[in-house]
Amino acid sequence: MSQDSFKKYLLTEFNIQFNDDSLLQEALTQRNYLNEHQDESGRDYQRLEFLGDSVMQVSVAEYLFKRYPNWHEGQLTEMRIAMVQTRSFAHFSRVVHLNEGIRLGKGEEMSGARDRDSLLEDIWEAFIGALYLDQGLEAVSVFLDQTLFAAIDTDFFDRFIDFKSRLQEKLQKNGAVDIYYRTESEQPLAGNTQLFEASISVDDHELARGTGKSIKDAEKAAARTALKLLEDK
Amino acid sequence: MSQDSFKKYLLTEFNIQFNDDSLLQEALTQRNYLNEHQDESGRDYQRLEFLGDSVMQVSVAEYLFKRYPNWHEGQLTEMRIAMVQTRSFAHFSRVVHLNEGIRLGKGEEMSGARDRDSLLEDIWEAFIGALYLDQGLEAVSVFLDQTLFAAIDTDFFDRFIDFKSRLQEKLQKNGAVDIYYRTESEQPLAGNTQLFEASISVDDHELARGTGKSIKDAEKAAARTALKLLEDK
Repeated sequence: MSQDSFKKYLLTEFNIQFNDDSLLQEALTQRNYLNEHQDESGRDYQRLEFLGDSVMQVSVAEYLFKRYPNWHEGQLTEMRIAMVQTRSFAHFSRVVHLNEGIRLGKGEEMSGARDRDSLLEDIWEAFIGALYLDQGLEAVSVFLDQTLFAAIDTDFFDRFIDFKSRLQEKLQKNGAVDIYYRTESEQPLAGNTQLFEASISVDDHELARGTGKSIKDAEKAAARTALKLLEDK
Repeated sequence: MSQDSFKKYLLTEFNIQFNDDSLLQEALTQRNYLNEHQDESGRDYQRLEFLGDSVMQVSVAEYLFKRYPNWHEGQLTEMRIAMVQTRSFAHFSRVVHLNEGIRLGKGEEMSGARDRDSLLEDIWEAFIGALYLDQGLEAVSVFLDQTLFAAIDTDFFDRFIDFKSRLQEKLQKNGAVDIYYRTESEQPLAGNTQLFEASISVDDHELARGTGKSIKDAEKAAARTALKLLEDK
């Protein structure tokens, strides 16, 4: 996608139009591209990445702080770490087609950098840094509401959360209890895979069940269900 | 200092008046204080600390980004790390008398927590988190302009910066050069201490000198002076 197409896409999809186009350009420019185009006077994305990194931290922290008024700081921190990380940012860079807009050096292009998570994380942060400078924190929040924050409701970040530890912490808050995971069944699926069902019991009382393609995943699903049951009480 | 006196101090000294006093109260309340005062329904400072941590990150990042338009992201990061850390926050907690306003549990009071750097760092972050929620990022910047940011001009953070590595990086940017530190003199000072003078030479050409109470400090001062000379060119 050319930078012009990308600008149109941002406007159509997210109602974002940069006041200062050079900020968007800087966020999407990799160092070796500039080495190969000595006539260009701009910068690469790295200073904007520095800024965008902390803009992401504060945006996510404020969002979680307000959305989960009853979470303690340990839960907030765990969720923030799950959201603010390479794999997550790389995913959303692809979702909003940032990867297609990057101006890469030829060597990086040849070696497949355009699809490399570490570059896509950097570009995500640089884009957020540029949007922040151009339009402020509120505009960043509106953009994240449509991307990263929306993904909370689809359980996107659950893969990064240690539900078993969290459940254990919750159950043992008022003293030791006996927590027991048991594999209840396994059944063959297509493609040489299996589906496991695990149960979790506390002091011999079954609390919840979960399924997954490994015993670990099934136990995690059971812990997640148990946590939801406990939080709804 | 009572919380009322502290509120007056904030108003007189920094022109800060909270719209929601309970936020300030929460920022200054330690968990065991609440355990000992079961009639109080408020929270302790830990959630605000979670938020304030990232507010500090973004405030400092934006300040450095704008103040040093020619620094690359490595220099920006190094300075941010120097500014956003326990010893620095504890220092400024004392400067603005936050330590005097904390509501501590009795055990913590007895054990001297009121003057403990780790607690004072937490309280600084919690206060910043409260100020951010109450009045926004701009108000935080104005407050930091009078405290943390002002300290840049007094070289307060220099103690945390590795000037020798930074100079070496700068000098060897375009290839290896021979960097040589030499102790030029030492003279006795009062109280069994000494003052050292060190010089730094590059390819046998003396670049700068510095003094300090140890050879290490003298070399650091020389590297700092050399860096300033190079940046002014």
